Amino acid sequence: MFHKVKKNKQKIVRPRPSTPKGFKDYFHLYSKKRVSLIKEICEVYELYGFENLETSAIENLDALGKYLPDIDRPNQGVFSWKDEENNWLALRYDLTAPLARVYAQHLKELPLPYRRYSWGPVWRNEKPGPGRYRQFYQCDADTVGAHSAVSDAEMCIMLSTIIEKIGIRKDRYVINLNNRKILNGILEAVGILNNNEIDKNLSDMVLRSIDKIDRLGLLGVKDLLGKGRRDDSGDFTSGANLNKVQIDHILQFINMKQDNNTKTLKNIKDLVGDSSTGNQGIKEIEQILELSEAAGVFEDRIRVSPSTVRGLGYYTGPVYEVELTEKIENEDGTVNEIGSVAGGGRYDDLIKRFTGQVIPATGFSLGVDRLLFALNQIKSKTETHEKGPIIITIMEKDKLSEYQKIVIELRRAGIKSELYQGNPKDLGRQLKYADKRGSKFAIIMGSNELNRGVVQIKDLELGSRISSQIKSHEEWKDQPAQVEILREKLIDFITNYSNNF
Amino acid sequence: MFHKVKKNKQKIVRPRPSTPKGFKDYFHLYSKKRVSLIKEICEVYELYGFENLETSAIENLDALGKYLPDIDRPNQGVFSWKDEENNWLALRYDLTAPLARVYAQHLKELPLPYRRYSWGPVWRNEKPGPGRYRQFYQCDADTVGAHSAVSDAEMCIMLSTIIEKIGIRKDRYVINLNNRKILNGILEAVGILNNNEIDKNLSDMVLRSIDKIDRLGLLGVKDLLGKGRRDDSGDFTSGANLNKVQIDHILQFINMKQDNNTKTLKNIKDLVGDSSTGNQGIKEIEQILELSEAAGVFEDRIRVSPSTVRGLGYYTGPVYEVELTEKIENEDGTVNEIGSVAGGGRYDDLIKRFTGQVIPATGFSLGVDRLLFALNQIKSKTETHEKGPIIITIMEKDKLSEYQKIVIELRRAGIKSELYQGNPKDLGRQLKYADKRGSKFAIIMGSNELNRGVVQIKDLELGSRISSQIKSHEEWKDQPAQVEILREKLIDFITNYSNNF
Repeated sequence: MFHKVKKNKQKIVRPRPSTPKGFKDYFHLYSKKRVSLIKEICEVYELYGFENLETSAIENLDALGKYLPDIDRPNQGVFSWKDEENNWLALRYDLTAPLARVYAQHLKELPLPYRRYSWGPVWRNEKPGPGRYRQFYQCDADTVGAHSAVSDAEMCIMLSTIIEKIGIRKDRYVINLNNRKILNGILEAVGILNNNEIDKNLSDMVLRSIDKIDRLGLLGVKDLLGKGRRDDSGDFTSGANLNKVQIDHILQFINMKQDNNTKTLKNIKDLVGDSSTGNQGIKEIEQILELSEAAGVFEDRIRVSPSTVRGLGYYTGPVYEVELTEKIENEDGTVNEIGSVAGGGRYDDLIKRFTGQVIPATGFSLGVDRLLFALNQIKSKTETHEKGPIIITIMEKDKLSEYQKIVIELRRAGIKSELYQGNPKDLGRQLKYADKRGSKFAIIMGSNELNRGVVQIKDLELGSRISSQIKSHEEWKDQPAQVEILREKLIDFITNYSNNF
Repeated sequence: MFHKVKKNKQKIVRPRPSTPKGFKDYFHLYSKKRVSLIKEICEVYELYGFENLETSAIENLDALGKYLPDIDRPNQGVFSWKDEENNWLALRYDLTAPLARVYAQHLKELPLPYRRYSWGPVWRNEKPGPGRYRQFYQCDADTVGAHSAVSDAEMCIMLSTIIEKIGIRKDRYVINLNNRKILNGILEAVGILNNNEIDKNLSDMVLRSIDKIDRLGLLGVKDLLGKGRRDDSGDFTSGANLNKVQIDHILQFINMKQDNNTKTLKNIKDLVGDSSTGNQGIKEIEQILELSEAAGVFEDRIRVSPSTVRGLGYYTGPVYEVELTEKIENEDGTVNEIGSVAGGGRYDDLIKRFTGQVIPATGFSLGVDRLLFALNQIKSKTETHEKGPIIITIMEKDKLSEYQKIVIELRRAGIKSELYQGNPKDLGRQLKYADKRGSKFAIIMGSNELNRGVVQIKDLELGSRISSQIKSHEEWKDQPAQVEILREKLIDFITNYSNNF
């Protein structure tokens, strides 16, 4: 954590200036884009009647529950610590678990259904990897008291509204739809679950295995459903120990996505047999498809997808996931789909943990950073960069009040501008700074100009190639990319020029 | 942390649904106001040429340093824990310490001066109290590479721009201005500091004592400068152990704010004597006042205030604080000023911790939640509440697709609306829900209406008093606050009505 610096023969220990592993900083353009994407999404949430909620980032650990897929990690993937009174506190790992806590806590004041949206960072104590950070933004909408599949349908429709609003083409995404009840029906059909006597651990293990299909492929899933799987590094993950018949049945299920929903559903019906849970699941899917069609979201964009199970442990019914099918080229020349950018589902038992009462709920989470990455890949790379502020340079220190007046006038006219704040002894350095900021103009005024009632305006775009060699005011005046104007015309000049950008 | 619930003779242990002590949740109106206040502030920052930065919430503990005033608490007021590799991680307690880390880390790519703004929650592991939470929002602007007092002046000017922009009257706030160098000059003058051989601990102790003047008064500060102070609970805080002459000199200094800055500065000059540090401090204050005047911020709003020292340990030069002088009435009938809502100062050594090189910097932090509280107190209480969505009720379950079409049409017209998501068996319950959401209209349509090509619109504002007694559709039709319109005229009707709100 510390590195040593030798100085005056004595060792000074200095902290290393770096984010912890798996974290990063976000600079101007990125963080502004993130804010504006979140704003666009939340406008849709409000149009659909959802209200904002911001929970505290820190929760009591036990309020969050243990639902993360990556359960092999310490602390179940959560950053946690003990407070002074020996209670475990933790940073939220998503926005859904806190919602369940909020609803249980404010049960009496909140309306039912309670429809809320939330956005903000969440934290995962997971192994960082390329493009995989331990802090990232989510933007969620959920309906607590979601009585039927009508609410799940609304979520799919709203997802489609958002995805199209932010600029993804109708033929470049698909909502993959499935139902945990169907999976449970399949498990019933092969004798793993019996009459709702659900072996939660085993079924969780099965769905975690299926959830890894994108990364491990069908064969990897097969190993995990059976004895287990050894990865390239030699690490062994033990499996669910199902028998061959059971494994085949499950693989047949997750591999049965067809060209059209009717065919897929027909095949699923055959597999589920007379499991009532399974058939209930199919009925819900059919209702979601019907309502989505009524809202103009047709089969081209919403597809029954048996391999979509969602990793989180708290889902109990329909699950849905937005997949962007746009192909992108990686640095190494390989091409792949962008993949999942949002997902959610029904979680009827999450609030029950607190209250003992079943309060059904459904909702989804948009991965804001993932979506921004996707939009950057998709959208034209010719987008214009934000212009930097106009820089008022400091020629003579005793004219500071005059410079100050110029910057105030510019700002009153709504023009982004600043008085140079560094060491002003060198004009070249000030112009270099303006260049680095992407400024269009620098304003220069010494005694000479002040006495004559004029200012010099340097066009930095025109002059960027030569500015680095300029050292003195006199030298600068011989350069082409400059114009002298009356001091009193300054605001007019800049305003007119700005309009012509 | 757990409470026990008896059920079926067996004890079920359930997590308690509550935020940890000192934390809270923020609902719709508050969190939206917060976002819009932050937006207003950041627009000013951008106008002044600052760029956005969002750092990670989690930092390496040693990168944050130990600068919090409340040093008697465990962990120095910070939430921290060890990661798997035994490194200490911590949640940021402000946005300034992370900026210093970011600048040191990205030294080569960032411009100098580097002007950035940041906003977001910060966390303090402090004793919670009324109105004092462990998570709150700050919104900061800082200039790294701030060469001279010109930058401190800019900060004061920008503070004034922001405070007036968000609706605080010119005669209802004041920027209190001081300089740590003057305080050091005073300490030199009474023999506590000698020739820059600064006894950092002692001078920190003195400024922490002075910082408590608002809470403890002059006598409390006097005790803390001397042997120490016993509070009402009997707890004893040991003092700085200065002698009577030293204490008197310091008290004379912090108590010398005059009606005008010229008088205050004259008195300070007498006290500082020939301390060069002290006189440098006075010179800087004079320059800040001069530049502020050039920008139209006069003595009525910027005042030399010797008792303003700021609690944080990292300041090295000018410090400034915005005080709202508006009086508010508390619940118990007592009246007091709103007080400090923003503050900052110069911290020339914070980046040096990492780099060994002095990189001067100055900036401030706006306490967003404190400011929102103030604005709520000041602004008229007659502000209109946000209207809830239009609720499309569910009369008959097999008409869901028809209801779905209505809600989609409304949303396409930009009208906030939702299909009722709860259990639809009871119309009264649906109308009660619409009422609780503050909806203007509920839309009702059964087979009868559908066959005749009409819908019923219930005006909930007119009808709110009676809606709770209505149980059936038939009963409802006899009520006054309803209108039947052609289905095809629905959007027109609502749009026209909305414009007349």
